[in-house]
Parts: sequence; C-alpha cells; structure tokens
Amino acid sequence: MDRITLGHGSGGQLSHELINKLFVANFGNATLNQLEDSAVISQVKSNQLAFTTDSYVVRPLFFPGGDIGKLAVYGTVNDLAVMGARPAYISVGLIIEEGLDFKTLEEIVISIKKAANLTGVKIVTGDTKVVEHGSADKIFINTSGIGVMREGYRPAVKKIKPGDKVIISGTIGEHSIAILSARGELGLDTKIKSDCASLFSLISSALKVSKNIRFMRDITRGGLAGILNEIVDGANFGIGLKEGDIPVKMATKAACELLGFDSLYLANEGKIIIFVSAKDARKVLKAMQGNSTGRHARIIGEVVKTPKSKVFLNTTVGGKRLLDMLVADQLPRIC
Amino acid sequence: MDRITLGHGSGGQLSHELINKLFVANFGNATLNQLEDSAVISQVKSNQLAFTTDSYVVRPLFFPGGDIGKLAVYGTVNDLAVMGARPAYISVGLIIEEGLDFKTLEEIVISIKKAANLTGVKIVTGDTKVVEHGSADKIFINTSGIGVMREGYRPAVKKIKPGDKVIISGTIGEHSIAILSARGELGLDTKIKSDCASLFSLISSALKVSKNIRFMRDITRGGLAGILNEIVDGANFGIGLKEGDIPVKMATKAACELLGFDSLYLANEGKIIIFVSAKDARKVLKAMQGNSTGRHARIIGEVVKTPKSKVFLNTTVGGKRLLDMLVADQLPRIC
Repeated sequence: MDRITLGHGSGGQLSHELINKLFVANFGNATLNQLEDSAVISQVKSNQLAFTTDSYVVRPLFFPGGDIGKLAVYGTVNDLAVMGARPAYISVGLIIEEGLDFKTLEEIVISIKKAANLTGVKIVTGDTKVVEHGSADKIFINTSGIGVMREGYRPAVKKIKPGDKVIISGTIGEHSIAILSARGELGLDTKIKSDCASLFSLISSALKVSKNIRFMRDITRGGLAGILNEIVDGANFGIGLKEGDIPVKMATKAACELLGFDSLYLANEGKIIIFVSAKDARKVLKAMQGNSTGRHARIIGEVVKTPKSKVFLNTTVGGKRLLDMLVADQLPRIC
Repeated sequence: MDRITLGHGSGGQLSHELINKLFVANFGNATLNQLEDSAVISQVKSNQLAFTTDSYVVRPLFFPGGDIGKLAVYGTVNDLAVMGARPAYISVGLIIEEGLDFKTLEEIVISIKKAANLTGVKIVTGDTKVVEHGSADKIFINTSGIGVMREGYRPAVKKIKPGDKVIISGTIGEHSIAILSARGELGLDTKIKSDCASLFSLISSALKVSKNIRFMRDITRGGLAGILNEIVDGANFGIGLKEGDIPVKMATKAACELLGFDSLYLANEGKIIIFVSAKDARKVLKAMQGNSTGRHARIIGEVVKTPKSKVFLNTTVGGKRLLDMLVADQLPRIC
C-alpha cells in the first residue's frame, strides 16, 4: 500500500490490515491487542484520575525538533503531568486525508510509539477515519489521556498566594519559531528547534522536593503571557514578571525582532511555569535545573496582591508594562 | 460572532469567549468549569475502567434522526456500554473549519449536551482547534470516554461457545440509508431515519436477566456482516444466520434494491448483537423487547463449530451464502 484510501477507514479488510500491520505492530500491548470497543484498564490504584483530550492539527507535520506524532503524545502527557498525575494510558484517534503517503503515516506512527515508550504511557485504544482528498489537511491526531493522581496532592489556581514565586523551566518561544521556519515563512536561516518534550520527569523532580507547589501549567498556545493571563483571570492576585529574568535564546530574539513577534506570546511545547511558596522556590529551582528539560529554569517573578487579575512586566529599563491577553494568537495551527 | 475564525482556536481572548459562552454555558459542571489542563475525576468506584475513543467525520452534519453531535456522544457511550461498563465521563475535541457558522456550531453543541444529559455522562474536558478554510470539512468531533466496569463481569469474544445464540436488537441498515438520503444521493423519497441511539439502557436490561451474556458489540461501520466477521476472525467457531429472521424495514429493502446495496453491510448507530447461552436466549430477548430501543429484537442465528472463522447465511430459499468481510465499506464518512 502506497497511499491511504477511503477504504482504509471503512471498517472492511483494508481497515483491518492497516490496524494490524501498522497500529498493532507498533503500539501493541496486551490491552490494545484485544481490539475491543473499549480498552479495559485494570489496577488503577488511585481514587482520583486525571482525564484530558487534545487534537493536533500542526502544519507542517514535520518540523525541527519534532513532528505531529511526538507533539500529540507529549502534549497530552504534559496536560496530565501538570495536574500532578502520572500519565498512564492514552488513546490515538486519527483523521487522515485520502491520498496521504503510507510512508508519512508510518513515520508518524513510529514517532508516536517512541514518545509513548519514552514516557511510559500505554496506547490502549484508537480509531481511524479517512476523509476525501481536500476534506482535511493530511492528518489530524487526537490523543486523550488518563493519569493517576498522586494521593493527597491537588494543584489548583486557588492555592496560589501573594508572595509565591513563579518559576519557568527554560527558554521561551522556540516551538513557534521552529514551526515558522519549517513553513519557510521566516525568510531567515535559524537553527532553532521546537522544545517539544515530555515534562513528567521534570515535574516529578520538582514535586519530590516541595509540598508547597501550588499550581503548574505548560505554556503552550498563548505563550507565557497568554497562560499567565488565564491564571489571573478572575483571581484575587496579580503576577509581576522581571523582564531581565525571562530566559529567551538570542536566536529567538533575533527572529522575533525581524518578524515583529513578541516572544512572551509565542507557543512552547516543553516548558512549564510552577507557582511555589517563596520559602521552597530555591529548592524547587535547583531540582528543576538538575533535570535535562529544566537546565535553564529561572525564577521570573512573583505573585502580588495588586493589581489584581493583571500580569505585568517590570522592564529592564525600569518601567512597568501590562501584559494583556491577545485577542487571537499570532500564529494559527502551531499545535 | 457570526462565523468561527482562526482566532477562536488560538488560545487568546476569542478562544476564551467561545469556551465560556458556548461550551461552559452548555456543558458546564463542577469538573469541566475548572478549565484545567486535565479534568480530575473522583469517586471512580471500580478497579476496572473502560476507555475508548472515536472521531466523527460524518457528512452531512445533520441527517434524518440525528447529527454529528448526537452521533459523537452515543457512539462513544455505546462503545463503553457494550463492554459492560457504565458510561461516566466523556471528552469533546473539536476540529473546526474556519468560516463555520456559529449557529451550526451552537446547534451541534446543544445536541451534544442533550445526548450527554439523556445518557447521564458528564463532559469533563475538551479542546477546540480551528484550521484554515479548505483544510477540514466544516467540523470533526472526537469523543473519548471513560466507563466504570461492572464488578465481576467482562464480556469477551473468547467466552463465545458453539450453541450460543445471536440476538440482534432491531432492524438493520437505517443509518446508512438516512445518510445517503441526506446527501441527496438516493434519488428516491425515503422516510427512513438514522437509528442513532444510546444502547446503555438496553444493555442494562439484558445484563439484568442473564449472567450468560458472552459478548456484545454495536454493529456500526461494516454492518452486521462486517462486525460478525471481525468476531470470527481467528476464532475457533463460526456463525450461522437465518436470513428470514434478520429484521430489515421494507423501506430499507427497497432502497437497497434500487441502489444495489446489501443491508447486511450497512452501518447502524443504535443496534447491537448479543451472544448469549441458548438457555438464556429467550429470557434476554424478552428483556430486550421490553426496552424501547430493543422492541424489534430477534434471535437471528447461532454459533457453530464448523465452518470455523466463517459467517454464513442460511437463505430463505434453502441455500447457504458465505458472508465475507468487504474489502472496503460501501459508503465513506457515514460516522
């Protein structure tokens, strides 16, 4: 088979061949191999589960540092991990455009497999639909995930208090720049790669050293400024950042200047912010810096009483700049 | 807002407005309203969970008897229910084509809400992506679901034994015919509606009266013949059906004759087959007929020792017809 046809999504022999030769061959495990209407998951040892879903429509499918498959696994793994959960099971739902190269699909499947193996999540259920040529753009992937919550730990925005520190796990903006570069829309040669990564191990390192981590979030769509604005929305506190402390690679700065982008609003796919008590901030920072995905972690600001529900930047020249939520993101289809 | 724009999927203010005014307003519950990266689900009282995913790409979005929203909820609910699980939580992931009418989206959301309420599943997490005009066909929906398994009950193909009876819950083929009719491809006036329905209550009625239900499956893509072929694939038994006992509406037969379709391969969205011991078959049949979605249930055949791994039809004229799995389905995008 060279290309995916409508028949591969039809529930007939072609579907079964695709499922067996590609999906079971790569993702196979005792649960998935049953190929039942639902996966039956045993031994869930917590009374609390985390459940999340995300669809991935990134364009192009392959970009420096990643591809739609890796993104789909890590994106969902990270959404579970930031809630303090151990990512355990994921589903993979594919919507494929008729005519997609089989080789492309295979590359994506292998990337999904690799990412799932590296993070220790099991792919236990899936679904494939094929739509006519022109009715989708190559492939869209939905991954939903189930994680097992840590007993007695529940991060929440409402636990954030004035005085808490804000830690970022590394440099910002690389994912968006890598996507732009892959689209050939940069007009400049950049070596920036997407930061697409699993954050589970980093988060575990942080949680190991402190019981005072109030809240965590991965700063994807909307970027650092967008996500912080979501957090302060309706809250009884504000967030003050120190511009000089926010880590941005020189190459990202250069690309932003050239294109008129603000790195504070660029998407990341392997970065988190952590809100932690001032007392534990150094300890958590050290633990994060000891993890390969947190080497460039920094304390970038703190939670303040006023102005409430606002995010502002203490600029390097001594001013204050309000960081609003953008009406719409700067770039469509970055994840 | 009249139409969906790329900005509605960007993570900025437009996204937030859409989430709050449409999704939270309609689906809202204490868990969803947190709008966290994952939903935290408590009080899962079983050690075994069912987990399933399906993407819906049906064309057109609205058809006699249903729409993509209703289909997306019931399809996933049914995949959980046939495993013997109580459907509990679902996720809703939308991929929207730029330019979709807001009114259309709203109608679909209301349909999702209604279906979820009727089956008692909670929508606890979701995701919205918007792609450029021409990169998708109006809207695709992924629903993933978590169900709580009944203690001590685990239906499985390997429990099926020669002598077991095969019960169908009603007339076949209506979903495919309704879709064709909605596409204006029928060239005939039909009043057939899709059978799109939740099967949870029907399945519960059946499970209440028998401990000998070996296996259940909803007969969607691939139809009755396709799904039975999946079941016998590699199995140590075959299935013999009695043509005269398979319930098909006159109008479905007429449409099939006109168009050259075989109703045995047409998709259904509210029908199951149940494999049960011969001893309990009548009892289960009665229980099913007492439920509104099982009124036309019939025993349509039985499990045989030979021929192994085959599905055959004892025809009304006294012959035997082998029912193979089709290479590809007769119709694309029916779900």
